[in-house]
Amino acid sequence: MSAPGAPGASADPVLIGPVEVVGTGLIGTSIALACRRAGIEVLLSDTSPDHVRTATGLGAGRPRRPDDAPQLVVVAVPPDALGSAIGAALDAAGADTVVTDVGSVKKGPLEAVARHRAVGRYVGSHPMAGTEHSGPLSASAALFDGRPWAITPGPDATPVAARVVEALVRVCGAVPVRLSPGEHDRAVARTSHVPHLMAALVAGTLAGAPPEHLALSGTGVRDVTRVAGGDPRLYSQIIGGNAHAVAALLGEVRERLDLVLEAVAAQDRVGLESLLGYGQAGTRAIPGKHGAAPEPMEAVRVAVPDHPGELARLFADAGASGVNIEDVRIDHDPGRPVGLVELDVVATRAEELRAALASYGWTTHI
Amino acid sequence: MSAPGAPGASADPVLIGPVEVVGTGLIGTSIALACRRAGIEVLLSDTSPDHVRTATGLGAGRPRRPDDAPQLVVVAVPPDALGSAIGAALDAAGADTVVTDVGSVKKGPLEAVARHRAVGRYVGSHPMAGTEHSGPLSASAALFDGRPWAITPGPDATPVAARVVEALVRVCGAVPVRLSPGEHDRAVARTSHVPHLMAALVAGTLAGAPPEHLALSGTGVRDVTRVAGGDPRLYSQIIGGNAHAVAALLGEVRERLDLVLEAVAAQDRVGLESLLGYGQAGTRAIPGKHGAAPEPMEAVRVAVPDHPGELARLFADAGASGVNIEDVRIDHDPGRPVGLVELDVVATRAEELRAALASYGWTTHI
Repeated sequence: MSAPGAPGASADPVLIGPVEVVGTGLIGTSIALACRRAGIEVLLSDTSPDHVRTATGLGAGRPRRPDDAPQLVVVAVPPDALGSAIGAALDAAGADTVVTDVGSVKKGPLEAVARHRAVGRYVGSHPMAGTEHSGPLSASAALFDGRPWAITPGPDATPVAARVVEALVRVCGAVPVRLSPGEHDRAVARTSHVPHLMAALVAGTLAGAPPEHLALSGTGVRDVTRVAGGDPRLYSQIIGGNAHAVAALLGEVRERLDLVLEAVAAQDRVGLESLLGYGQAGTRAIPGKHGAAPEPMEAVRVAVPDHPGELARLFADAGASGVNIEDVRIDHDPGRPVGLVELDVVATRAEELRAALASYGWTTHI
Repeated sequence: MSAPGAPGASADPVLIGPVEVVGTGLIGTSIALACRRAGIEVLLSDTSPDHVRTATGLGAGRPRRPDDAPQLVVVAVPPDALGSAIGAALDAAGADTVVTDVGSVKKGPLEAVARHRAVGRYVGSHPMAGTEHSGPLSASAALFDGRPWAITPGPDATPVAARVVEALVRVCGAVPVRLSPGEHDRAVARTSHVPHLMAALVAGTLAGAPPEHLALSGTGVRDVTRVAGGDPRLYSQIIGGNAHAVAALLGEVRERLDLVLEAVAAQDRVGLESLLGYGQAGTRAIPGKHGAAPEPMEAVRVAVPDHPGELARLFADAGASGVNIEDVRIDHDPGRPVGLVELDVVATRAEELRAALASYGWTTHI
C-alpha cells in the first residue's frame, strides 16, 4: 500500500493545490498526509499551535501564511464549531477557492452559510473513516483507503466546486458517494446514528447485570454492543447535530418495538416471526464487498489453540488453499486455552476450504 | 485439537454411560460425537429414522433398543417439543437414569415435568453453541469446545443428577455455568434474546432503504445487525418460549428508548451523553477472555491487499512478533482491491506489534 504508484498515491489533474487544512486533528492531518503523498502542497492551520507544529513535524505540510492562496480549504474542526469555521473560510477565500468540510452531519453546516455570498463554492463532505483515537499523532495517509466518502453539494454549489472536492476524495484513496445534504443526514441516521443508539441501549442492559448472567455472553451480544464502546461525548455531539433525522427514524423504531413487545407478551409466534423476518431481509440489504450485490457467504469454523503463531499457521494453510477469506471472527473461550475462529468465504468454496484445512490437521466444522 | 489427550477427549469418572441422545439434529449429534470421542457408549433415537441412520453412519452411536438402560438421557428436540419429550424420557427411565435437555429456555421445560414422580432426576442445561446450519451432517464433536454451558437444576433436582450433567458438559469440552432455571432465562433474555430483537429492529430500518444511503454502511451497522440474519422461525420459537423474561427486559429498554428520544428531540446533549455513557459502561461489563476481567485492548489497523495469501503473510508477520492477537476484524472496502484489517491486542503491546509490522513493510495506523 505504501509503494509508489499504490492506489491513492497519484496526483489528480483537477486538484492542483495548495490545499489548506483547518484543524489538524486525526481527520485533518490524515487528509494532509494523503495530499502530500500525491505531491500536493498543504497549508496547515489550527487554533492550537502545538497541533500545527506536530502535523508539520509529521510531514503533513507547512503552517499557513496570510498571503497563501489555497485552491481548496478543508475544514476539519469539531462538530459544534463547523458552521462558523466554514463561514470564516469562505470570508477569507479568494474568488476561486473551494471550501469543504468533513463533519458527520451535513444540513446544519450548509444552513449556517446558506446566505453567504460565496456559498456556491462550498461543498460539504463526510469521509466514512475514523478510529477511537484522536489528534494528529494518530493520523495516517492510509486512513481513507477504500472507504466511502459522501460528497453533499447544496442547491447553490457550482459543478466546479463539487469536482474539486471529488478530486480530493480520490487523492485520499476513498470512494465518492454523491448525496444531497438532507439525504446524507437521513442516510447516516440509518446506517450509523440509530444503530449506535440501539447498541447503547442493549449495552446499557448489561451494566450492573450479575456476572453469572454475563458469563453466558456469546459473539451475538458482543457484536451488537461493540460500537457503543465509542466516546459518549463525541457521539452526543454527532447525534445531537442530526437530531431531526435521528428522531424521525428512532420514532419509527419505537413504534416497531411496541409491535415486538405486543407480539412477545401475547405469545404471537407468527407476528414475532414476521418482525424477525423483516430484520433478516434488512441484513441482506447491506451492500457486499466492492459495492456488488452480496454473494452468499458461509462460515468455516476452526478450533485454534490460543497462542502466538497459531493464527499465522491457520492463515498460511488457508492461503495455500487458494480460497479468499472475506471475513474473520475470533470467538474467545471463557475458560480454556482454545479459541474458535470463523472464516467467512463465498459459500460455493466453503467445502474446498474445509477439506484443505482438514488435510493440514485442523479440526473444522460447519 | 483433535490429537489424543486434547481437551474434552478424556473420559469422566462420573459419566460412565451409556448416554442416550433423543433428537439427532446438530446439537444432539454433536453431543453424541463428543461422548464417543471420550469412549462412552451412545444410544440414538429420533422421530426421523433417517436422522438416526445418518448419525449412526457418522459414528455417533447406535440406534437405541428397548432393553437399553442409559445412565443419562439427553433430550435435544425443537423448543416446542421439549416438555413432552422430557416427560416421556422420565417415564421410560430406570430408577437411576438422569435426564437433561439442551433447550434455549429453562423454566418452561421444568414446569412441564414439575409434578412428575421422577422430577428429581431431571436437570436442564443449555450449551451456548450452535451454527446457522442444522441436522446431523453439520454436527461436530468440537462444537462445544470452550463454550459456556448452563446447568440449571430445579428445586427438586438431586445433587447426583446435577453432577452427571456437569460431567457431560466437561466431556463435551464446555465450561459449566450453574444457574437456577429462572436466572438462566433472565440471563439469556439479556445476553441473547433482547440483543437479537434489537438487532432485528435496526436491520428492519435497512430493508427498503435507498441503495445510495446503504452505500455509507460501515463496520458499525454490520456488527449491530449481524445476528438478525438468523432464522426467524427458530428465533420466534426461542424468544416466544422466554416471553416473560424478554417482555420484562424489553419493557425497560423501551422506557430508556423514550428517554433517548426525548433527549434527541430536545437537543439535550448532556442527557444524551449520560445515556451513551451508560451504554459504554455496559460494553465493559462483558467478561473478557478466559473469564478474567477485561484487559484494555487496542486495535492495530493494517491495509491489506484483498487476495489469497495476503492475510497469511500478515498473520505470519504478526505471529513472528510474538504479540498474541485477541480478535480480528476485516473491513471490506466498497470499491477497491484493498481491505482494512483490525488486529485487537492487549493495549500495552500494540506499539510493539505496529513497529514489527512496519518493519515487514505493512502500512499500519492507530
